[in-house]
Amino acid sequence: MKSTMQEVPMTVSSILRHVATNHTVRQVITYSVNGSARYATYGDLEERCARLANALRRVGVVGDDRVATMLWNNQEHLEAYAAVPAMGAVLHTLNIRLSPAQLQFIANHAEDKVIIVDGSLVPLLAAVLPGLATVRVVFVTGDGDTSPLDGHGVTVMRYHDALAAESPVFSWVDPDERSAAGMCYTSGTTGDPKGVVYSHRSVFLHSMAACTGNALAIAEADRVLPVVPMFHASAWGLPYASLMAGADLLMPDRYLQAAPLADMIQQHRPTKAGAVPTIWNDLLQYGIANPGVDLSSIDLVACGGAPVPQSLIEGFADRFGVQIIQAWGMTETSPLAAVGRPPAGISPTKELSYRKRQGRAICGVEMRLIDEDGLPVPRDDKSVGELEVRGPWVTGSYYRLEDAERFRDGWLRTGDVGHISPDGYLTLTDRSKDVIKSGGEWISSVELENWIMSHPDVAEAAVVAMPDPRWQETALAVVVPAPGRKVSADTLHKWCLETCPEEIPHWWIPKNWTFVEQVPRTSVGKFDKKMLRAQHEQGELLVVSKN
Amino acid sequence: MKSTMQEVPMTVSSILRHVATNHTVRQVITYSVNGSARYATYGDLEERCARLANALRRVGVVGDDRVATMLWNNQEHLEAYAAVPAMGAVLHTLNIRLSPAQLQFIANHAEDKVIIVDGSLVPLLAAVLPGLATVRVVFVTGDGDTSPLDGHGVTVMRYHDALAAESPVFSWVDPDERSAAGMCYTSGTTGDPKGVVYSHRSVFLHSMAACTGNALAIAEADRVLPVVPMFHASAWGLPYASLMAGADLLMPDRYLQAAPLADMIQQHRPTKAGAVPTIWNDLLQYGIANPGVDLSSIDLVACGGAPVPQSLIEGFADRFGVQIIQAWGMTETSPLAAVGRPPAGISPTKELSYRKRQGRAICGVEMRLIDEDGLPVPRDDKSVGELEVRGPWVTGSYYRLEDAERFRDGWLRTGDVGHISPDGYLTLTDRSKDVIKSGGEWISSVELENWIMSHPDVAEAAVVAMPDPRWQETALAVVVPAPGRKVSADTLHKWCLETCPEEIPHWWIPKNWTFVEQVPRTSVGKFDKKMLRAQHEQGELLVVSKN
Repeated sequence: MKSTMQEVPMTVSSILRHVATNHTVRQVITYSVNGSARYATYGDLEERCARLANALRRVGVVGDDRVATMLWNNQEHLEAYAAVPAMGAVLHTLNIRLSPAQLQFIANHAEDKVIIVDGSLVPLLAAVLPGLATVRVVFVTGDGDTSPLDGHGVTVMRYHDALAAESPVFSWVDPDERSAAGMCYTSGTTGDPKGVVYSHRSVFLHSMAACTGNALAIAEADRVLPVVPMFHASAWGLPYASLMAGADLLMPDRYLQAAPLADMIQQHRPTKAGAVPTIWNDLLQYGIANPGVDLSSIDLVACGGAPVPQSLIEGFADRFGVQIIQAWGMTETSPLAAVGRPPAGISPTKELSYRKRQGRAICGVEMRLIDEDGLPVPRDDKSVGELEVRGPWVTGSYYRLEDAERFRDGWLRTGDVGHISPDGYLTLTDRSKDVIKSGGEWISSVELENWIMSHPDVAEAAVVAMPDPRWQETALAVVVPAPGRKVSADTLHKWCLETCPEEIPHWWIPKNWTFVEQVPRTSVGKFDKKMLRAQHEQGELLVVSKN
Repeated sequence: MKSTMQEVPMTVSSILRHVATNHTVRQVITYSVNGSARYATYGDLEERCARLANALRRVGVVGDDRVATMLWNNQEHLEAYAAVPAMGAVLHTLNIRLSPAQLQFIANHAEDKVIIVDGSLVPLLAAVLPGLATVRVVFVTGDGDTSPLDGHGVTVMRYHDALAAESPVFSWVDPDERSAAGMCYTSGTTGDPKGVVYSHRSVFLHSMAACTGNALAIAEADRVLPVVPMFHASAWGLPYASLMAGADLLMPDRYLQAAPLADMIQQHRPTKAGAVPTIWNDLLQYGIANPGVDLSSIDLVACGGAPVPQSLIEGFADRFGVQIIQAWGMTETSPLAAVGRPPAGISPTKELSYRKRQGRAICGVEMRLIDEDGLPVPRDDKSVGELEVRGPWVTGSYYRLEDAERFRDGWLRTGDVGHISPDGYLTLTDRSKDVIKSGGEWISSVELENWIMSHPDVAEAAVVAMPDPRWQETALAVVVPAPGRKVSADTLHKWCLETCPEEIPHWWIPKNWTFVEQVPRTSVGKFDKKMLRAQHEQGELLVVSKN
């Protein structure tokens, strides 16, 4: 039996029309040098989007041509977010933290035709441009020197001049909702980067999901600060969700250090903000050093991209009165898949035990845990398996790439390992490639790291597998002491034995310790454990063994 | 360019699986006789849904067979809401306030195979049953006498016995998201009732929309009280949205009078509630008569189905400290299409002017106003046109019925007339069939009614068109005095002239007044203005004319 409902596609164009029609006076604020700011209302934004779309048409962008960005979080990036899909083209956000070789691979693989680049990133693009096979036009925002881009047979234009020359009216396209709206490449530690192609449908649904009460509950009255880069999993979808809700957007541009972030929060009073733990930890340290810092405008700090240390959650609550909510997702999941709000009616004493978890699935996303034999694992908060996810905003393949082992019966194999509680809360204990299997049992590096990092003399701690003659593998703790502090293997080992909570069995506690100045990180800022294992294998780490 | 996103349909089954997996301990509470209550967790609910689905399969429900309900708002109705679509069949909610002839027409037109009826409604069904051509099985909830249903060749079973005999496990069906999940007939004042068929997609999207921050922001921590009947536009989608969010549902069953409603609110402390203005007005009067009544648990009262008098909004805020939010929609729009939250950052003095409006479109729904020549009307808050709407949860046709004049270029013509402000707020001034056109200009009956009902001696007021030799039409006010009060045409006419706000031009003020004991209402509780005009035409109303 057919329904009588209208066939109306869910599109980025409909989000843009909605915000420009209903939330005309709300605005995007871009933080700028010396604490100044630029403002544009969403009414203005739509006109600027129309100018951008006309400028892109003029330089030959048609159909599903890819328009890439190398931009910070700012108004111009938001214009590209809205205009490129709403004109029917495909937005490709390039991760400016990748190596030139990776950027070349990605831009060529996606066949980018146009790149919009921030003036400050012209030198980076200049290093990449000679190897780009399909790029025909570059738009440069701001006023920087564009001459390094000359001489490669590519037309270089000033973004603002190009827009000024165009009409502020454009007839937005409503394509089939399953057609591509945007793409983003993930860069694992092995192999070439892999492309995920978002559809208009997935962007629309993900935005709605972000606005629901169990997720981020974004509403018009919010002012949303996406610190997480817009080239990193669509800044967790915050820009599109904020447009859908008509919420103000506060954009940090390139000012991602604690001091300017604290200044922008105090000046512009965002109500919701999203960033990786490192950023929030920097702000916490900054707040400790500068006791007047007031972040109280924020009523929801979303934190993800890496496990959130308990000490950070407690520090934020104690120092700023601000609650951190973990969220879990990945480029492949748009990214929001789970949000860690504690369950309704939980007693305050039990709340922290929920805040430490990665969260509960948003309705639309289904999760399951699968063991090494491909069998489902019970949701008993103990049994460990690889997380697999399914849903309309979860990828089912990679762009022009066969990678069958990442998928099972239509589910995405996330490569994350953990357990799920009977009330649906996911706790991740490891990346599957980083798991430590000791005497046939799994050791959770994440829980150990979390605990070791709660020691006052420890700044960072990574726990990786090292070979063990008796147990096959055992845990090696790689520790960065807190600035100006000294700490020894003896002290930490003894402290762990004496203080660690019951979730951490004593046999997990590392007997092998090494101290470093910094933990190597991947291009997306996570601990590079593959590198650590390689360093250990090659004898580059000085290991102290307790026994 | 194709996206890489998974092909996962949005279904009622996925909502049911989600709530049963993630919000197992949240619950549905059904109010019962003498203030007692019945409880079922959502974990239990899914088992009972499985039993119901097995029972329906056993009596032959297959494919998209229609399963009808004649039930109050209670746990059993929620079971049917979830189980019937999740097994692949189609839920048909019968409006128990319709006449037996209308019920027969509807059940035959939909080809209902099974009816689930509340024990208290057996006499109503018994009157209808002999005329039902397709019904084969009736399930009766509760313990009432079922013998009036005997002798019509229909199998009659006790609902609870049938469920008890079945397995609590069922393999839920995930059909194509565009297939039918439920249906509901609208009964206009003319012609046969018309069927709207909701899809799994439209139910899922509408539920997500209801949970967004700009709409009802339903979250797990909420306790939702749908007073609006579940046979009336899916109780505004509150049951499905609450399941999606894992929010508790407080069900009033048949206890819709002010005293039991006040008792259930005080006992069970809902945070959100939805009902038509009449219900809230009864509660306000009850609160005035019983000063101890405490409705303060409610932080959002959604009110719709009819224009909300300003006096009711102010009364609720003053007496209970509870804000009323208007919502606009109709059976054809699932129904939530617009929600009247005041804009962010509005000054308190301007807030009421927004609360009086029907609301702003939810992202996904587009609105436009069209004049009598079929041309769009500007959004200047003054120009009046017929409201047309479009969106993935808006109907594009009626079930097995050609009614082309209700649609234009794929948009639904709502039959409502009003204006829209530049910031997107809709104000309805009339039904198109009830408009009063005087000397070529429209008079808004709704604004006049609103104003007249704010007079302390007036309980209800309806304003309808009456023929006028000079102006073609003029306004006739039909007034019900407040209990125990007397009021005259002289007093009201003079009071209107002296006090009415500037939105109401003096020439709108009715010169013709009539006083009645009650205003006739349609089956869904709205003023029956067609009946009033007929009564006036036939000289049944005693009209006092001022001049």
